[in-house]
Amino acid sequence: MKVKSSFGASYTEYEVGDIVMLAKDKPLKLLNGASIENFPLAYQTYGKLNKDKSNAILICHALTGDQYVASKNPVTNKEGWWSSMVGANKPIDTNKFFVICSNVIGGCMGSFGPKSIDVKTNKPYGISFPFITIHDMVNAQNLLIQELGIDKLHAVIGGSAGGMQVLSWALLYPHKINIAIPIATSYRHSPQNIAFHEVGRQAIMADSNFCSGDYIIHKKFPSKGLAVARMTAHITYLSEKSLQKKFGRNLQDKESLSFHFQPDFQVESYLHHQGYSFVERFDPNSYLYITKAVDYFDLEADGGSRLANVFGKSEVNKNLKFYVISFSDDWLFPVSESRKLVSTLNSCNINVSSIEIESGAGHDSFLIGNNVLENAIIGAISYL
Amino acid sequence: MKVKSSFGASYTEYEVGDIVMLAKDKPLKLLNGASIENFPLAYQTYGKLNKDKSNAILICHALTGDQYVASKNPVTNKEGWWSSMVGANKPIDTNKFFVICSNVIGGCMGSFGPKSIDVKTNKPYGISFPFITIHDMVNAQNLLIQELGIDKLHAVIGGSAGGMQVLSWALLYPHKINIAIPIATSYRHSPQNIAFHEVGRQAIMADSNFCSGDYIIHKKFPSKGLAVARMTAHITYLSEKSLQKKFGRNLQDKESLSFHFQPDFQVESYLHHQGYSFVERFDPNSYLYITKAVDYFDLEADGGSRLANVFGKSEVNKNLKFYVISFSDDWLFPVSESRKLVSTLNSCNINVSSIEIESGAGHDSFLIGNNVLENAIIGAISYL
Repeated sequence: MKVKSSFGASYTEYEVGDIVMLAKDKPLKLLNGASIENFPLAYQTYGKLNKDKSNAILICHALTGDQYVASKNPVTNKEGWWSSMVGANKPIDTNKFFVICSNVIGGCMGSFGPKSIDVKTNKPYGISFPFITIHDMVNAQNLLIQELGIDKLHAVIGGSAGGMQVLSWALLYPHKINIAIPIATSYRHSPQNIAFHEVGRQAIMADSNFCSGDYIIHKKFPSKGLAVARMTAHITYLSEKSLQKKFGRNLQDKESLSFHFQPDFQVESYLHHQGYSFVERFDPNSYLYITKAVDYFDLEADGGSRLANVFGKSEVNKNLKFYVISFSDDWLFPVSESRKLVSTLNSCNINVSSIEIESGAGHDSFLIGNNVLENAIIGAISYL
Repeated sequence: MKVKSSFGASYTEYEVGDIVMLAKDKPLKLLNGASIENFPLAYQTYGKLNKDKSNAILICHALTGDQYVASKNPVTNKEGWWSSMVGANKPIDTNKFFVICSNVIGGCMGSFGPKSIDVKTNKPYGISFPFITIHDMVNAQNLLIQELGIDKLHAVIGGSAGGMQVLSWALLYPHKINIAIPIATSYRHSPQNIAFHEVGRQAIMADSNFCSGDYIIHKKFPSKGLAVARMTAHITYLSEKSLQKKFGRNLQDKESLSFHFQPDFQVESYLHHQGYSFVERFDPNSYLYITKAVDYFDLEADGGSRLANVFGKSEVNKNLKFYVISFSDDWLFPVSESRKLVSTLNSCNINVSSIEIESGAGHDSFLIGNNVLENAIIGAISYL
């Protein structure tokens, strides 16, 4: 079934691909106590599922990603967000693997989220949408996998908030995956990262067009607040060095300082572009919900402040192999956090490999074509 | 002369201390080409000027600081922002030194700034206030020093944007100072820092109460935008480690996650407090102007992309001694930038000492009581 959804301040509608209705017979219980049922999940698949259904790879997208991992995004009209990595003859080769990517619940690309119509009120949920967590996102993905008739995934792969989903998969459904590949992520969101998310949320909610989350009903859109949130976040996706190298203090389309409040520097114009292109494709309430889900992610707390308790006590077995990837200049999810994850897995006698990749693009390194990353993933998914 | 000024969303008036009218006879030319005349500069002094007028120390405040370096701030009712460092029997001992601190032009604590009334329109300038630079701030301070009858300052000291003023002093008036002590600063504002400032400016201008800078005329106040700007900036003032140590993922006044958009974590509550207390004491337009002045600061560009050209060609002489102080975990003005400054000064055969202080509080380390910093400054100002 193809579905349509609206985007941006103009509420233009786009077709956003395949959708499946989940939890039709049995509601899905969320971590906050609420239950959801008969809810949509939008997804894309690439390649073919083989006869013994052993070649499926699930890719989990990051904060503002979507199901269009390797095909043209109908809203932005850009290539899929990881098309350097996924496709025919690409590192995650769709001639060989059946790749699945779904839009997370809470998202805005067709899956059940704050834009969805609440049947009780016949209006979009807005911020009356139930709070969701990373674990809830994964439980919904598990229903999709069941729906597709797959008992075991060859691999679950994801970066950033997608990497948190990978860790959650490994803990919730260890018997359902062979290889878990968390990239540029952490076992918990740090206080600094929570702080940056909170600033973004405050910017959205400060926008007078936010209308307490009911901007769709009021036919408004908090573009400015959402753009500020995105600009702030975008700084954290790049490293100081990459900003220096990419832009330095170069001026944008001018010979000298303007002595005006228009952008003077290229780095400012770049941020503006990032901010204002984002508002054309993302829902402000989804941004609130998903950032909060990421902030809540804390496997250490789940283990009573001891990470080993979580992995030690789980049913993670010897057949599940972890491959932990981090980037040297990622300051959002620094290598130290991946090291802690790796040493914990080792201490729990869990099969784990890891690589710290020398990078120059900060956190966003996982999204950018990179030989070392590609070879690492080729190696990791060839396991077994 | 004591003056009153209004602050915050309620526009409450406070007395903000001594003021002097400058450039009465001859206009002060700004770097953007405009001239200003007969403008006010608010300042505070501590201690007594000695007979030969050789014991004066000028302290330059940072971005959102003010003239209340060592006495109770009438607006916040808090101790002066550097009262750990300045006062009787403090490291900068007012029994010995005559300490001067003035509010920068562009500021909002009584000095000529966007809140000032434009005599041509009889309305506050708003964003028709002339663009000012760090050099302009220093030129105004120089007029104050002249007014006070001081030919030579024993030392000029400042951290962050105050440190930029120190460097500017050393270049513009090298014969007028003995010791320059730039702290936690740089020879230019980095692209990452410009990016954070621009996000803050965008947050202010996105607020519907900004009214194109004329919020005073419209009796409104962009509190939310200014708070978001402050919250973003505040994250950069602290280190990731200090946030981890100070707050970790501790919850604020609750036992478990709220599943709500109220702050869950202490770090969020702390940021809210920082943001919303700031709006009670600071002018949004001043924030725009001063951040822009800091962004424009670039001694390297002034030297045709070679820093040594600036210091080599200036009249900085052998009698002027630099003492450069930086902090190990300051990621806003990393030690590498101070190192570059020091090596440039050395290459220009300029008298320079430096210290990199092991710190735990990030950029804000310079504001916090710290024995090593205090001893460094005691040593530096005892020179000659």
